[in-house]
Amino acid sequence: MKTKDKILETALELFNTSNTQAATTNHIAAAMGISPGNLHYHYKNREEIIFSLYERMFDELFPDTSYIPQTLQELNEQHKKFALISWKYRFFYRELLFLLSRDERLKERFKTDNLAYKKRIEIMLLDFHNKGWMHLPLDNMILHLSDTILMFLQFWHPFLESIGEEMNEYNIQGGLRRIEGTLRSFLSPEGLRLLAKIES
Amino acid sequence: MKTKDKILETALELFNTSNTQAATTNHIAAAMGISPGNLHYHYKNREEIIFSLYERMFDELFPDTSYIPQTLQELNEQHKKFALISWKYRFFYRELLFLLSRDERLKERFKTDNLAYKKRIEIMLLDFHNKGWMHLPLDNMILHLSDTILMFLQFWHPFLESIGEEMNEYNIQGGLRRIEGTLRSFLSPEGLRLLAKIES
Repeated sequence: MKTKDKILETALELFNTSNTQAATTNHIAAAMGISPGNLHYHYKNREEIIFSLYERMFDELFPDTSYIPQTLQELNEQHKKFALISWKYRFFYRELLFLLSRDERLKERFKTDNLAYKKRIEIMLLDFHNKGWMHLPLDNMILHLSDTILMFLQFWHPFLESIGEEMNEYNIQGGLRRIEGTLRSFLSPEGLRLLAKIES
Repeated sequence: MKTKDKILETALELFNTSNTQAATTNHIAAAMGISPGNLHYHYKNREEIIFSLYERMFDELFPDTSYIPQTLQELNEQHKKFALISWKYRFFYRELLFLLSRDERLKERFKTDNLAYKKRIEIMLLDFHNKGWMHLPLDNMILHLSDTILMFLQFWHPFLESIGEEMNEYNIQGGLRRIEGTLRSFLSPEGLRLLAKIES
């Protein structure tokens, strides 16, 4: 593995088990057995490492940014992928606001990605409504629902923390179950029939 | 006003307009025209000031911790109160996870308060269901809905930030409109009739 990649892997491990403030570039270099100078040759500072990890996570989440799930089955698969990837990069969601407050570039990038994703959720919901799988007659229901979905995707980790639940792979899935529970209440009889087929 | 109270007022103002890291105890003392020694006579450190502000906010939010809204009208009034108070103490919700990660006592206290409040939301929802105002036949719907309500109350501020919306008094109300939109989709015809009366 190239040093540049190995730095990201090591930083991710340290950030996940500790946090981004406790794991300095010196700690990362030490854990790799390289000099701080060697690390700084590849990444100017910790912000650059965090930004690169964000880019990597984004590419794993959205290999194709124009992709919109066309069926309930595809949506279900996307949710499972999200759970895995947000667990892999859990330091990011755990420290989200703190990280955004410390890096204007990351904040802008995250906002742009987030708004684009919210738009895709809205297009998907409208499509499911038009296909007769969901019942979302009012415009603001689609807006409310897309906000709810994004909230659960982004803030489920901190929510677990706020009610004193451990952040582990099983609990992470709970956020997706909440999204599915919310979506389910808007499914039409046809939508419920399709969902039962997926779950069987 | 007593010095002890004046310290809290000044800290709140500085935390809201800047942030808790930028506003040190020295800044707070300077803004009041008192010596750092005088401030430290009342509060050992910044953590103590933040904890006291949390206690003050909590007392304003829940003057009676056994209170559970009995009607949709009472719930509506509680939501309005929440919007005002979460705006007044906006630094707290903006920095929530960061603050909890830095003070074990605050973290424990917040978790306990939060779990107790979640329990009260669940009791209220079950009561509304039993009164025939809401349709929540499955146990896990009440759990999902109480999570959704808590998520919107606690993470609406950071959510606004994550989609690049300004945090102002008007936008803060948006979180409550989302909660109401979510609750509305579970109202029975009788519940909708009662709601229309409140809104008219």
